[in-house]
This record gives sequence, C-alpha cells and structure tokens, in this order.
Amino acid sequence: MGSDLSIVNSARISYNRDSKELDYKDERLIKYLLKNKHTSPFEHVLFTFNIKTPLFIARQWMRHRTWSFNEISRRYTDENIEFYIPKEFRLQKDDNKQMSSEEVLSETESFLYHSEIRNQCLISLQIYSEMVSKGVAREIARGILPQFMYTNFFGTVDLHNLLHFLELRTHIHSQHEMRLYAIAIENIVKEVVPITYKYWKELKEE
Amino acid sequence: MGSDLSIVNSARISYNRDSKELDYKDERLIKYLLKNKHTSPFEHVLFTFNIKTPLFIARQWMRHRTWSFNEISRRYTDENIEFYIPKEFRLQKDDNKQMSSEEVLSETESFLYHSEIRNQCLISLQIYSEMVSKGVAREIARGILPQFMYTNFFGTVDLHNLLHFLELRTHIHSQHEMRLYAIAIENIVKEVVPITYKYWKELKEE
Amino acid sequence: MGSDLSIVNSARISYNRDSKELDYKDERLIKYLLKNKHTSPFEHVLFTFNIKTPLFIARQWMRHRTWSFNEISRRYTDENIEFYIPKEFRLQKDDNKQMSSEEVLSETESFLYHSEIRNQCLISLQIYSEMVSKGVAREIARGILPQFMYTNFFGTVDLHNLLHFLELRTHIHSQHEMRLYAIAIENIVKEVVPITYKYWKELKEE
Amino acid sequence: MGSDLSIVNSARISYNRDSKELDYKDERLIKYLLKNKHTSPFEHVLFTFNIKTPLFIARQWMRHRTWSFNEISRRYTDENIEFYIPKEFRLQKDDNKQMSSEEVLSETESFLYHSEIRNQCLISLQIYSEMVSKGVAREIARGILPQFMYTNFFGTVDLHNLLHFLELRTHIHSQHEMRLYAIAIENIVKEVVPITYKYWKELKEE
Repeated sequence: MGSDLSIVNSARISYNRDSKELDYKDERLIKYLLKNKHTSPFEHVLFTFNIKTPLFIARQWMRHRTWSFNEISRRYTDENIEFYIPKEFRLQKDDNKQMSSEEVLSETESFLYHSEIRNQCLISLQIYSEMVSKGVAREIARGILPQFMYTNFFGTVDLHNLLHFLELRTHIHSQHEMRLYAIAIENIVKEVVPITYKYWKELKEE
Repeated sequence: MGSDLSIVNSARISYNRDSKELDYKDERLIKYLLKNKHTSPFEHVLFTFNIKTPLFIARQWMRHRTWSFNEISRRYTDENIEFYIPKEFRLQKDDNKQMSSEEVLSETESFLYHSEIRNQCLISLQIYSEMVSKGVAREIARGILPQFMYTNFFGTVDLHNLLHFLELRTHIHSQHEMRLYAIAIENIVKEVVPITYKYWKELKEE
Repeated sequence: MGSDLSIVNSARISYNRDSKELDYKDERLIKYLLKNKHTSPFEHVLFTFNIKTPLFIARQWMRHRTWSFNEISRRYTDENIEFYIPKEFRLQKDDNKQMSSEEVLSETESFLYHSEIRNQCLISLQIYSEMVSKGVAREIARGILPQFMYTNFFGTVDLHNLLHFLELRTHIHSQHEMRLYAIAIENIVKEVVPITYKYWKELKEE
Repeated sequence: MGSDLSIVNSARISYNRDSKELDYKDERLIKYLLKNKHTSPFEHVLFTFNIKTPLFIARQWMRHRTWSFNEISRRYTDENIEFYIPKEFRLQKDDNKQMSSEEVLSETESFLYHSEIRNQCLISLQIYSEMVSKGVAREIARGILPQFMYTNFFGTVDLHNLLHFLELRTHIHSQHEMRLYAIAIENIVKEVVPITYKYWKELKEE
C-alpha cells in the first residue's frame, strides 16, 4: 500500500496531487525527511510479506516488535514439516564471539555433516509422527523437532520500520541466512519506492 | 517499580500522598479505572522477570510485543545447554485442533517416549558439540538442537500489559506449560499490587 | 489495504484462494478469531484516514499509540487557520465528573456564547497574525490560538487496533464530538470488511 | 528503576553480580552495546517523570509513542488553570520555515505582546469560567482556552527510548522550549546512569 507519492502527500497533508510523477521538489522533500529523521510520513506506506524460513531465523525476525506477524501454528497442524539442511558450513569468526567468517568447512566434512543433519532431522520427524499417531498433543510433540525446521508466516510492516529492519539485518554483523532475506526485501523496496530507496541508500553510505 | 499507590497517584496526577495505606476512595478509584478501561495509570508500574523456559514456550511469549526482552544468544555461547524432557504426555483434544486434553499417555508409553526424547536430545547435542569443536559457527550449528532446549531471558513489562498477558495466558486455550508460568506470575502480581489484583480478578469472573 | 478475504488468508497462512467470495467456513473462521481474541490476522488489513478536527479532539485521538500520524505543523505554516465554533452547548452531567449530558444550554445563551467564542477566536487570530507579521516565530505565536482551532492529519492504523479504537470512542463515555468521528469511521469499516464488522458488532452486543 | 549495572546484567542474562561498582569490562560492554545498536538491555531501565508544560509542548511530547502518559483531564476538572506567558519572543528563522532564530523582538514590542497575551488568556479564562458556571460541560468549554495553557502529566519511558527522545529533542531543530525540558532530563539521565551517558554522548559527537 502506498508509493513515493503517498510519502510526499502525507508529509504535506495533501491529497490534491493527481500526477503520478514526482518532480524535483518532491524528491528534495523525501531527501530532507530522511536526512532529518522526520519518519512519520514513511509510516503510511505498508508492506506485507509471506516468508518461509528456518526457526532460528524466524526467531530473530519476530524480535522486531513493529511488525505484525501471523505464523503457522504447530499446535494446530502437523502437515508439511520440512527442514533446511545446510550444504556449506561457515566457520566461527576468530575475533568475534558472535559472527561467522567467510571461510567454510572442507567439502568432505561438509558432506558428512549435511548427511548427519538430514538423518537426525528425519529421526526427529519420525519420533514426532509416532507420538502424534499415538495421540500425543502436537503442542508437546513438536518439542523434539530441531530448529532447522521451516516455518511460514505473514509479516506486515510500514516503510519506516522496514528501512530500520534493513539497516540492521543487511549489516555485516547479521547472520548470513538473515542477510539473504534482507537483501531480497531490499530489492522489493527499491522497486516499490525507488526515490526513497535512492536517498536512504545514499545517506547510509555517507 | 511501583505499587497500588502509584496507580492512584498517576491517575490523579499527584505526588502529594505520603501515606502508604490506600483508603476506601483509592480502592474505588482503582476499581473504576479497571472497569472503564482507563488503562494508562497501570502503565507506570513495571515488572522485570528472569525466565528459563523451553524454546516453544519462549516463542509464544515473545510474540507479546509490549514486553522488552533480552535473551541469551546461541550465536554467542555454546555453554549450559539443557533440555526440558517431559515425563507426562497430554493427548490431543478430540474436539479442538489446537488444544491438549487432560488425559495423558499410559505410563509405559510415557516412559518410552521420555527415554527416546532424552536420547534424541543428547545425540543432537553431541552432533552440535562436534560441529562447534570443528570450528562450525554456532549460529549454524544450533539449528540441530530441538525445541525442547531451554532458553533464558529477561522480560520487562508494565502492569497493564502484564494483566492482558495473564488474561490470555492463564486461559484454558493456552498451552499447559505456558499456563504454569502465567499462574506463577499471577501470584507475584497478587503480592505486589493486591488491590489491583483483587478487582481485576473480580471483573474477569463477572 | 486488504479485505475480509485477506484476514482469512493470513489466518490460514495461505495465498491459494482465488475466489473473492467468502464461504460459510470463512465466515465461521472470522467469528472464531474475533471471539477468541486471535487478533493478529486483523493486523494485515490497513486503513488511512485524512482527518480535520479541533485540537481538543485531535489530542484525544493521538493518545492512541498504535496509529501512525502525520499532522500539519503550526511551526511550519500559518495558512488556513480555522476554528470550530459550537452552536449547541451540552451541559455537564450531574452524576459524572467527566461526561456531558444530553441537555443543552437555552437558545439565547447558546447564541450568546457562540458569538463570544467566535469573537474571541478572531481576536486571538489577529494577535497571532500581527506577531507573525512582526517576525515572531510561528512556534511561539501559535500559543495564543484557542483549542477550538482545527488541525488536519493523516492517520494509518490496522483493523485490529481500529476496532479497539471504535470500541472506546463510540462508547457512551467518549466525548460527543469524538463519537461523531468514530461513528463515521465505523460506517467505513462496515463497507470495507462487512463480515468482520457483522461479527464484531454481534460480540460487542452480547 | 535500574542502573548501569542492570544494563550489564541483562545483557549477560545474569543476576550473579553483587558488586555495585562497574569494572573495566562492564564499561567496555556498555560502549559496545551502544555502538552496535544492541538496544534491548537499555529497555529494562525505566524512568517516570512528572511534567508541567504548555499544551503546544505537551502535544510534541505525546507524539512519542514509546512513552506511557497520564495527563490531567480537562473534561474532569476546571481547577488550577495557568498559562505560560512568554517574556521574550524569538524571531522566525529566515532560511528555515520551521525554526526560530536566536534573535528576539525588541524590548518594547516584547513587553507589548507579553501584556496582550496575558490579557487575552485572562479573557479566555473568564469566558470559560462563566460557561462552566452556567453548566456548560467542561469538555466543550475548554475549547476556548489558548495553547499557552499549562498541562500536567506523568510519563514513563525506558532508557533506550529516552536516549532516542533526547537525541531528537535536544537537537538544534527542536523548539527552544522543548529543548529546555530535554536538557533538564539529560542531566537526570547523567546522574542515574553515568557510564551509559558518557558513551552515548561520545558516540553522538563522533
């Protein structure tokens, strides 16, 4: 919902604009608003995403309290359980307790852990399914499923808070898998509000 | 931070009260505020909790966006990993796709699944530890750990939003494990703000 | 942005629906969600309003922190200053220190105060304009303008929080002028999400 | 509620610290958290303020949606109505449509407007009191009162959001009267959490 034009209109509290084209003054206004942290006009542009992602990424995502989320409930359904099985394994960074480096495990070892993880996920799923078939409540049985499990959610957020999300989650400190989602979203933002995107990017790089 | 008295004071925008004892008029005011959903005076009373709970409960908890959370980061540390291993297994409710019933699995079967879960958690932890010792980044390796894993967080919330939390999470529709935490918190609230608690309870039961 | 259908889709985390028509199952789902306070699916339906209202109403409105607001700034512009001049004057309610009653002042007295208020607003505007023409900053000069002054804002809110707003602001305890706005908005909601509106109304009246 | 120490403890999810004194490692942690925008540990330190301020400042303040507010209600009481009557009148800035400059009106003109404003406020109050004594509801009668009227509120906010408030409201773009409040609050913050304050200030000036 919304566009660069709706930012300009809400900043000016005006509906009078017919033209879809922004002129030079409009662009300057958007730049000014971003630069001076007049964030409210960006809150009237809204995005909804449908995201499929492993649990450990979903947990980071849902810490952003300015989003509205609707997630598939594993209390409710035991269908379509899938896992993310990594093929590459980034190494822990030496000089940062939190981050991974760009180096990865050797091919042989990676293959080994890929298999072991797949295997372990399947066994967990088996135990889960068996418990469920015996009548155990899904809300308990799900505890055995590893955090590589995919979940699926709808997330709605306004442009101001989305830009803040992108700033944090495209950052080099953010987990690689999270950054891939953030970069994909950045490309959507670029298409929907190209002028805002241009000046936001400029300011970020200053 | 705060008490029944601070609710009364902030409702009256007054600091003038010395007495710690609430009188009849104060009590009536608290009842009136609760009944008529004048919620803001309850937002100046704050609670901080330190919670240890399995992941699938933590995930429900953190959907409450009015809390401030600080959680142990498994990108950062691989120490003190523990699991919740259930001894009883409630059955899925027949007439509700989401809830568990009060019935439980037979003792023999419960014992079986208890062992199987413990075993599976230990194997996951072993694979995890091995990956970490080979240098795999914690942020990836953690994916193998089941949702029975305990996490630990600080949560801060104001009384108005805490009462809303209690209403939802002590409800019969809420997951049993979640309710146990909610009931424990309810007892703390009762001690800290006894007058507010009394009228909140009354209204809820009307 | 959104409709009854998008509520159903986000509750089911599904995009698969082509049909615009809700069937019986969809209606039952919406009713169930409302009744059991599963509020998140209603957060993906968004409304933006452009509101012109006197300051004392705007101040009540902006206490709703789940809305995003963009208001005309009187630091920035001294144009188009208008006032709400009441023609009827509701009396203070005897048994409630906060509310007005349905009784109004006599016609003669009403006419008198209407003129006096208009007069006083005009003098204030005159002093204001004179100060501004002498170079006094608008941010200071505006202090002289009475709270009958109109302001203008954009407000964006999701359906869940809008229904909560309507519950409070269409309530008999709410100020008459506020209720008129709330009722106008209620009619818009009824048109945009008729099924949700129907069951929300039903539940409210239970 | 809280201190520099509680920030350190919540960042480390630990209660084990007895000492009140922060050591070098603690200081470095606070600096790291601020620099890398790990904001959540600062959300467990809470402040409550009791503020008396003119309406046009209160309105700016209450746009900060992360605060909890409790304001005196002019629907409820007609007592203790006071006005802020400026003695100095800053001039509009030439090259910025929003700000005032450091220049002020001449002494003679200032004296003139000071009297005129006082006079106009008193007449408004007179009309108001007369209406109220005739039985007009306070919620309507208050519309005649100018925005120079003082209001009084309680505001509660966490340290993270308070620092954000201070960044915006001590800024040169902020209205002079607002900045005076912000600077007073900044001094309180400095006393309560000196270490956090020191590094926040350092980072801001980089």
